[in-house]
Amino acid sequence: MNILVVNSGSSSLKFTLFESASEKRLASGLVERIGTDSANMVYKRGDGGKRESAVSAPDHAAALSLVCEALTSADGGVLKSLSDVQAIGHRVLHGAEKFTESVLVTPAVMDEIRALVPFGPLHMPPNLGGIEACERIFPGVPNVAVFDTAFHSSMPPSAALYAIPEKFHSEFGFRKYGFHGTSHRFVTLAAAEYLGKKPEETNLVTCHLGNGSSLAAVKGGKVLDTTMGLTPLAGVVMGTRSGDIDPAVVLELVRKGMTADEIDTLLNKKSGLLGVGGIGSGDMRDIVSAAESGKAEAKLALDMWAHRIVLYIGGYFALLGGADAIVFTGGIGENAAVARDKILSRLACIGVDYDPEANATLRGPCTLSRPGSKTAAIVIPTDEELMIARDTAAVVAGKQS
Amino acid sequence: MNILVVNSGSSSLKFTLFESASEKRLASGLVERIGTDSANMVYKRGDGGKRESAVSAPDHAAALSLVCEALTSADGGVLKSLSDVQAIGHRVLHGAEKFTESVLVTPAVMDEIRALVPFGPLHMPPNLGGIEACERIFPGVPNVAVFDTAFHSSMPPSAALYAIPEKFHSEFGFRKYGFHGTSHRFVTLAAAEYLGKKPEETNLVTCHLGNGSSLAAVKGGKVLDTTMGLTPLAGVVMGTRSGDIDPAVVLELVRKGMTADEIDTLLNKKSGLLGVGGIGSGDMRDIVSAAESGKAEAKLALDMWAHRIVLYIGGYFALLGGADAIVFTGGIGENAAVARDKILSRLACIGVDYDPEANATLRGPCTLSRPGSKTAAIVIPTDEELMIARDTAAVVAGKQS
Repeated sequence: MNILVVNSGSSSLKFTLFESASEKRLASGLVERIGTDSANMVYKRGDGGKRESAVSAPDHAAALSLVCEALTSADGGVLKSLSDVQAIGHRVLHGAEKFTESVLVTPAVMDEIRALVPFGPLHMPPNLGGIEACERIFPGVPNVAVFDTAFHSSMPPSAALYAIPEKFHSEFGFRKYGFHGTSHRFVTLAAAEYLGKKPEETNLVTCHLGNGSSLAAVKGGKVLDTTMGLTPLAGVVMGTRSGDIDPAVVLELVRKGMTADEIDTLLNKKSGLLGVGGIGSGDMRDIVSAAESGKAEAKLALDMWAHRIVLYIGGYFALLGGADAIVFTGGIGENAAVARDKILSRLACIGVDYDPEANATLRGPCTLSRPGSKTAAIVIPTDEELMIARDTAAVVAGKQS
Repeated sequence: MNILVVNSGSSSLKFTLFESASEKRLASGLVERIGTDSANMVYKRGDGGKRESAVSAPDHAAALSLVCEALTSADGGVLKSLSDVQAIGHRVLHGAEKFTESVLVTPAVMDEIRALVPFGPLHMPPNLGGIEACERIFPGVPNVAVFDTAFHSSMPPSAALYAIPEKFHSEFGFRKYGFHGTSHRFVTLAAAEYLGKKPEETNLVTCHLGNGSSLAAVKGGKVLDTTMGLTPLAGVVMGTRSGDIDPAVVLELVRKGMTADEIDTLLNKKSGLLGVGGIGSGDMRDIVSAAESGKAEAKLALDMWAHRIVLYIGGYFALLGGADAIVFTGGIGENAAVARDKILSRLACIGVDYDPEANATLRGPCTLSRPGSKTAAIVIPTDEELMIARDTAAVVAGKQS
């Protein structure tokens, strides 16, 4: 069975085509800057061929048509025809409390997802648009929605609810949802396998560290707590997001005359490593390099970043009653050894016998703690597309993964 | 030397008179509901005598005059005349970045404190009013200002600064200040003594748990991090405060048309145990009793409260690289054994060999962990008034404590 995985974002459409039994990537790529004059398409074949070209993609439907053409093209395509796609999996940002696992898309499900647009006004419309375009282009082919929040739905109310009157939850849906759920789930399953344990007997602190970052406390394979909240703003310091901040700071900004949208932009787009590092970049590679060349603000940004992550790792370790492993994933978690060192070098007190040599030289999946370390530290490369493909296959086969 | 300690709040004035060498309380009490028709005064002598009476106290100066009359009254007074007061110590809410330790009040200091009113618009004016009244009533007697934020001023920038552009710090003073500093300092010194260690060699997680609550990570006797922030709203769940919440929740409330003041009232006065517990009370005694009689919301409130405290205890344990002890203080921390049990029963993973029997029966100062516990759990009753008196004596003697 061939499964197409679609991640339709605000101005881009990413895709991966899997042969599901072998989990082989037949092709992947993206169309970016959709709706602009400089739209661009990258198409990669599983066997290594890569093509990049300027394209005309006024909307997501046009972008998807381009993807389909490339997949079936005589010159570089990997499918004879579109009918060789048996199922399509879609990343959907927000399932709120409605969707706690992946679901087959039906007209009723589409209505329910549409009702959740207020939870993700920027991301949900293109998520929906991607599904609608697939329904037109692949008539009769099942679509499966995989929600970024679903894995966190196991959080107990004591972790998920905010300490505000219940009506704000029941009327407006204000609670902690968490994000990056597909990644946390993938690395939870992969880490358990790597450790030779059953997921239901595995306790982990999973650290998805990328431009957006979140940590999760995973107890017996289920999320007990996570750092992001109602939105992806909460938690640790990110590329451009502040993470946690006294909510009274927002009130003071309002009192100083800033609008909600201006504060939103400040905290989501102009803060974090970008806002603090003083080098006009929120990219961890740039921050590390500036810190290493002695730039004080970049050092501070890196220290703030590590401080908050150590705080949550220790906090989650305690909430879990101990952990089998601290798991690093995501662009930074998998690759930024210098940044990772700032965290790992402080975890001896929770049983991590850190091996700096391993951290500096190994690539995931790998172990960064010494043999016999009470709490392991490991790197597990994430693969959200594969997780979506697996879910899609399972849902289409009538069984949840 | 006799030292009068004054805590002049928004509608009350608390006082304690110490004989400073012996640290004996000669008298203490308060005038409450100042400025209302139902003003009331409580006056207690150190030898046990207690008097309570309706009084006329239109303002803080009038309240202070009543206190002075009582202290020198032929019937129950403890001083021959006001000239037997040699120094006065004042609790001041906010020292911002200006005051990192207690100071002798001078006209220049008063100007600087006045400039900090925006940091505590409700508390700073009565704090200032108390000092001004004492300057009039006790001419020539030195006044010392003791700041609730000062002990936290040792936080490194990586903990104290928010991950937002620096101009919000330099122009508006937005950063984490922390509160309850006098209590955290008192219990830090007392805990080190109790443990038989020097403060500068002692690592602690101090948990000041009362109607307002904050935790501090104390490394070598100095604060490394604390849960409250720019204001006392941040951190753990409190009697009526939400504590940490996705800052985007505040933005959503603004978008729904609530004003900054309404949101301020919601999060500071109507949330926390009060907002969640469903019994119209944010008092932990009421919450515990409702939870024990099976009330679901009260149980949830208690679980949320404990969840966030365990999160921070574990987080601070990690940031400290391990701790000698977890220290409980404050009204709840010292007295609420049932609530404390919800925390202590989860800390084995960070080396606390918890003794539930000790928790249920002992009164502080006491140890709630078993002998040999890698990390101790102890109760240290706080005494902010005594800390202020000690500081006042030290500042007047020309040496900082």
